[in-house]
Amino acid sequence: MRIGAIEAGGTKFVCGIGNEEGKIEDRISFPTERPGETIPKVISYFADAQVGAIGIGSFGPIDLRPDSPTYGCITTTPKPGWAQYPFLGELKRRFAVPFGWDTDVNAAALGEAAWGAARGLDSCIYYTIGTGVGMGVYSGGRPVHGLVHPEGGHVPVRRHPEDDFPGICPFHGDCLEGMAAGPALEARWKAPGHQLPPGHPAWSIEAYYIAQAVAAAILTHSPQKIVLGGGVMQQRQLFPLIREEVKRILNGYVQAEELLDKIGEYIVPPVLGTDAGLHGALALGLQALQGGSADFAACGSS
Amino acid sequence: MRIGAIEAGGTKFVCGIGNEEGKIEDRISFPTERPGETIPKVISYFADAQVGAIGIGSFGPIDLRPDSPTYGCITTTPKPGWAQYPFLGELKRRFAVPFGWDTDVNAAALGEAAWGAARGLDSCIYYTIGTGVGMGVYSGGRPVHGLVHPEGGHVPVRRHPEDDFPGICPFHGDCLEGMAAGPALEARWKAPGHQLPPGHPAWSIEAYYIAQAVAAAILTHSPQKIVLGGGVMQQRQLFPLIREEVKRILNGYVQAEELLDKIGEYIVPPVLGTDAGLHGALALGLQALQGGSADFAACGSS
Repeated sequence: MRIGAIEAGGTKFVCGIGNEEGKIEDRISFPTERPGETIPKVISYFADAQVGAIGIGSFGPIDLRPDSPTYGCITTTPKPGWAQYPFLGELKRRFAVPFGWDTDVNAAALGEAAWGAARGLDSCIYYTIGTGVGMGVYSGGRPVHGLVHPEGGHVPVRRHPEDDFPGICPFHGDCLEGMAAGPALEARWKAPGHQLPPGHPAWSIEAYYIAQAVAAAILTHSPQKIVLGGGVMQQRQLFPLIREEVKRILNGYVQAEELLDKIGEYIVPPVLGTDAGLHGALALGLQALQGGSADFAACGSS
Repeated sequence: MRIGAIEAGGTKFVCGIGNEEGKIEDRISFPTERPGETIPKVISYFADAQVGAIGIGSFGPIDLRPDSPTYGCITTTPKPGWAQYPFLGELKRRFAVPFGWDTDVNAAALGEAAWGAARGLDSCIYYTIGTGVGMGVYSGGRPVHGLVHPEGGHVPVRRHPEDDFPGICPFHGDCLEGMAAGPALEARWKAPGHQLPPGHPAWSIEAYYIAQAVAAAILTHSPQKIVLGGGVMQQRQLFPLIREEVKRILNGYVQAEELLDKIGEYIVPPVLGTDAGLHGALALGLQALQGGSADFAACGSS
């Protein structure tokens, strides 16, 4: 069975066709313009693909409440043309197949759980740290949402004692995203992250903020794996710094060997790399095909 | 069908017998002493009760991993005699019925979801703020655990600008529990909370810390209800203070009417009051009886 996957990012769309084993067999990518330009390209790509289901991992915020009149819409984005856009509805009108629908970051968490770093596990958390900071949560075989969906990029963080940067989040100033997203890093140091050498003080301050969110996620979600992706996390020197800071914050309180002795295997980069989101969209499509759930945990551990 | 319920607290045990509708028909309570004194009282209470299942909500930390050799044990508590005690195993040896087993706070979250403030909802978070701070998470029809179980009482918090209290958590100093549990309140103000008048500055500082954890939980879990229980939350003047502070932190970022217009119905006391834990243990027993899950959401909304 061929399954369609749409990773709808704020900058670019990636559409792909894959199979039930998580193999992407074909893909296409184009910039995210207004819906009137972008959605016809999506429709055209899948027009003759004969997919049995389509999964969408979308930039947000999005409406995920099945009983809501605006279910399937992007909600309050400043992106021109996309606010209140009935993304899912437009595609459903065109393709009579089951659809999976979730945030791009929840999709990435699901992708890593299905075929990546959290394969065979029952829970994981995915942070993407790039232009913004996003959080996806996978628990009990499904991406987590409730009131809306996780927006863990905007949690309050403690200020680093040597950091007087005011933060750039338009809503919260110095929340995690305001202090640690790529643009914050660049504004603080007057240079993009990839121009700062691995030994630069930027990285320990960056790790200080990310580690607070990771430690809080461990304490409040107790996930079996933490996956850190996105452009900023390409700076691999961050991983040991974050792991040490998480251990320092937790201070041995949570008694689990994954934290005490094996944290290098617990806080990890995405195995699927930049493809986590597209694989996640594929997994969402697969879950939709199977009536709302696919037991990736059982499948992965076999 | 009669179902047994055990709320195993660090100070006292409450055992009860209830039915599938959440009605507690009988109960007994005794102080938590060493296991050698306490467990025989539990066994004696249920000896002739002919219950079809037993649910246990236990003080922790506890081992919840079914594949662990110490599954069913209390793990690292300083409470004399209870560290590494095989709580679940001791009762299983005596009663050949299905057992539910989770933390006392996860049980309280489940109880409120089954028959209380979150009835009919798919997700809720329960904080108990008393001698310590505990967090229970209910999502997708089940209490959440993974690596271990939520320990959300120990998240880092930003210090209130007018507060120089160092915090009393032996692991973290000024984490949420270290700053906001009942003993922290008493140490900071040299008087127990119930002796401080409602207009005392203690309460806005207390709300400041609790609201940070609540706002972070909204951003990272997106629960449909937040229930705040425990001795400190008997001070009902805290609720409006916490709600206002949560709105201030989120600053309109999460677009949900529950937060924007109806926060008074969203951040609430437990409907089951001090009985949330015992009802939760009953619900754990009922889930065990039904093979690991009971669809309280469907049941509550009918």
